Amino acid sequence: MLSNLSVNLEQNSYQIAIAPNVLSEIGNYLKSLNVGNKILVVSNAMIFDEYGETLINAIQAANFSVSHHILPAGERHKTLLSIQKLYDQALENHLERSSTFIALGGGVIGDMTGFAAATWLRGVNVIQIPTSLLAMVDASIGGKTGVNHPQGKNLIGAFHQPKLVLIDPQVLKTLPHREFRAGMAEVIKYGVIWDADLFQQLEAAERLDELEYLSVELLQNILTHSCQAKADVVSKDEKEGGLRAILNYGHTVGHAIESLTGYSLVNHGEAVAIGMSVAGKIAVKMGYWSEVESQRQDQLIIKTGLPTTVPPMLEIDDILETLKSDKKVKAGKVRFVLPQQIGSATVTDQVTPDIISAVIKTCQEKS
Amino acid sequence: MLSNLSVNLEQNSYQIAIAPNVLSEIGNYLKSLNVGNKILVVSNAMIFDEYGETLINAIQAANFSVSHHILPAGERHKTLLSIQKLYDQALENHLERSSTFIALGGGVIGDMTGFAAATWLRGVNVIQIPTSLLAMVDASIGGKTGVNHPQGKNLIGAFHQPKLVLIDPQVLKTLPHREFRAGMAEVIKYGVIWDADLFQQLEAAERLDELEYLSVELLQNILTHSCQAKADVVSKDEKEGGLRAILNYGHTVGHAIESLTGYSLVNHGEAVAIGMSVAGKIAVKMGYWSEVESQRQDQLIIKTGLPTTVPPMLEIDDILETLKSDKKVKAGKVRFVLPQQIGSATVTDQVTPDIISAVIKTCQEKS
Ligand SMILES: NC(=O)c1ccc[n+]([C@@H]2O[C@H](COP(=O)([O-])OP(=O)(O)OC[C@H]3O[C@@H](n4cnc5c(N)ncnc54)[C@H](O)[C@@H]3O)[C@@H](O)[C@H]2O)c1
Ligand SMILES: NC(=O)c1ccc[n+]([C@@H]2O[C@H](COP(=O)([O-])OP(=O)(O)OC[C@H]3O[C@@H](n4cnc5c(N)ncnc54)[C@H](O)[C@@H]3O)[C@@H](O)[C@H]2O)c1
Ligand SMILES: [Zn+2]
Ligand SMILES: [Zn+2]
Repeated sequence: MLSNLSVNLEQNSYQIAIAPNVLSEIGNYLKSLNVGNKILVVSNAMIFDEYGETLINAIQAANFSVSHHILPAGERHKTLLSIQKLYDQALENHLERSSTFIALGGGVIGDMTGFAAATWLRGVNVIQIPTSLLAMVDASIGGKTGVNHPQGKNLIGAFHQPKLVLIDPQVLKTLPHREFRAGMAEVIKYGVIWDADLFQQLEAAERLDELEYLSVELLQNILTHSCQAKADVVSKDEKEGGLRAILNYGHTVGHAIESLTGYSLVNHGEAVAIGMSVAGKIAVKMGYWSEVESQRQDQLIIKTGLPTTVPPMLEIDDILETLKSDKKVKAGKVRFVLPQQIGSATVTDQVTPDIISAVIKTCQEKS
Repeated sequence: MLSNLSVNLEQNSYQIAIAPNVLSEIGNYLKSLNVGNKILVVSNAMIFDEYGETLINAIQAANFSVSHHILPAGERHKTLLSIQKLYDQALENHLERSSTFIALGGGVIGDMTGFAAATWLRGVNVIQIPTSLLAMVDASIGGKTGVNHPQGKNLIGAFHQPKLVLIDPQVLKTLPHREFRAGMAEVIKYGVIWDADLFQQLEAAERLDELEYLSVELLQNILTHSCQAKADVVSKDEKEGGLRAILNYGHTVGHAIESLTGYSLVNHGEAVAIGMSVAGKIAVKMGYWSEVESQRQDQLIIKTGLPTTVPPMLEIDDILETLKSDKKVKAGKVRFVLPQQIGSATVTDQVTPDIISAVIKTCQEKS
């Protein structure tokens, strides 16, 4: 079982290979890429313990010279300080312009490794080997890289496309359940905004709340359809001029909830799930979307073990305030992505504070 | 007197405007660029004292909202720490994706401001206003940005093209003489590798060792021809695939000399001047170039008050060793740019250590 997708860009198109055991096949991929001999693998301790040896052995078997660097795990280490450690390591290993960083990990490792690769010697190669579901279907594709500023997420970064994305679905077996569900929120997002077929496959599944309930085929399909959705959107809008904004579905209110709950109570995927539920209801209220489809979305979210209701302790006014301070706000108008039918969405700045608060009220009462 | 050049790239082409007093005209340029309202000017104390007020007033008169940040002067402050200060300032001023950094200074300010702009919010606008001759004819054009790693120059960086380059020749009047001559080394370089007309104009001048001996017309021509040369080469090879290598003329041996003299005794321009003299003689010895033209080059270097001889305390073996460790060396072969005739050069990896040491010996005996 191998899915081969491609992200088509004006320059630097690349391949996404999704297959069980693809990690041990990396040698052939490396040889076909025309990169230099030196490779630096970046990971965190936990993930490297699980999968590092397989990867390193496969790279060495293909006669590449490989070293690795372990960064501390967790979003709070996604900082310039970690990047400096990668620079030091790159220097120590005499990386050249033709050399390659490999990110083995979740989105945190992927974003940092990508940024170090973007800025070492003004740009060396990077290969993404995402190990969390979120990183597989989202963070590893599209070339956004970066780190956090003490006062804001992802404020520092660069666009730097990977040379290759390798996805082994089997590594998900060690991923904590809550992280799995967080990734599923993005999968549902692609179903709603882009791929009705994916949406139906998810609806057809009996349970989606833990990996073990998914058949190997369904998992492969989920990954393939989701990566294809992201690849399609990115191909059409590499640097976030327009279309790419639809990937923000569920993220407008989602980000506000994450931020107001201090990035701890509710994780990113849960916040996005709530945000999709709210955005869906706004779309219904404004006549963009049918009530029936909006309810089908909410049922899917619930089946995945994700929340649809806004945490009761949040004040609506605080949410509205936070929405207005979002960095993507233009001229004070909040931009919402709203579904029109399953598989298609649009962007609008016509959503008024009144509508938002009315909808959030109904989403909070339920809880 | 206004020269308007353009750097033509696949995406993001931009204009270089060279004219006395162009700083006070910035308002019209800003209005035509379609950038957001917020501007952050970056400079060092000395340069800002001289030219900051004129610039800030002109920006404000055009109704843009402007703030500024002063970085400490000097190459040793070209570090990630300075970049972090720029990030903090960008955050404090709520810069948005449509906002603009303006670099007002030499290459150090230009490289740092460019890198901060390349990586803040994954890329905001930057306008280069170079104030040293070197920055005018070289650093401000072409999109190379970056900072130093404690263990090597320019190891950290990104390609990020400016939206506009504004050059006011009059600001050179406050530039120290030695810095002026350093910039002239690059000007001579363009004459030798790209623009025979420029070379002849330089030859026709009576003195070139201090700015005051240059007529307003000659200075305008020097800037225009040099910027055009850099723009031509960069347009044809944006990311340093091939042609751009010829800009390294004089820099192979030059870098070795800078490095071996601890970046203090000999400045960059002086090292490049010596490097051009050495490369010229190598070209003659290998039959690429005529003795007569090589001597014309050396006379021009001398008339500019720049050195042609290798500092006597340097050991030839150390120079050869340093050449081999250059980051651009491929498979152990040193690549040299060699002139073929005035206005044209080629790149070769056929220069043997024997030839290099024989030539350096003659260059040292003379001193
Ligand atoms: N670049 C982009 O386009 C993009 C898109 C979305 C998110 N992101 C970024 O991605 C990050 C979030 O990614 P994430 O959710 O993967 O977070 P993460 O990288 O922190 O991974 C989540 C947790 O799962 C662990 N983990 C990952 N794979 C595992 C595996 N196979 N087995 C066991 N444990 C595993 C990690 O160690 C971590 O503790 C954020 O920093 C976000 O900004 C980037
Ligand atoms: N990005 C590129 O393509 C590129 C190309 C060449 C060099 N560079 C970089 O540029 C830097 C060297 O540039 P530089 O030579 O301009 O050095 P610099 O910026 O340090 O300027 C040299 C000195 O002149 C002063 N100065 C500048 N303009 C002045 C003026 N009008 N009046 C009075 N004083 C003035 C500066 O304050 C400084 O003290 C290096 O860091 C080098 O790596 C970059
Ligand atoms: Zn997301
Ligand atoms: Zn130079």
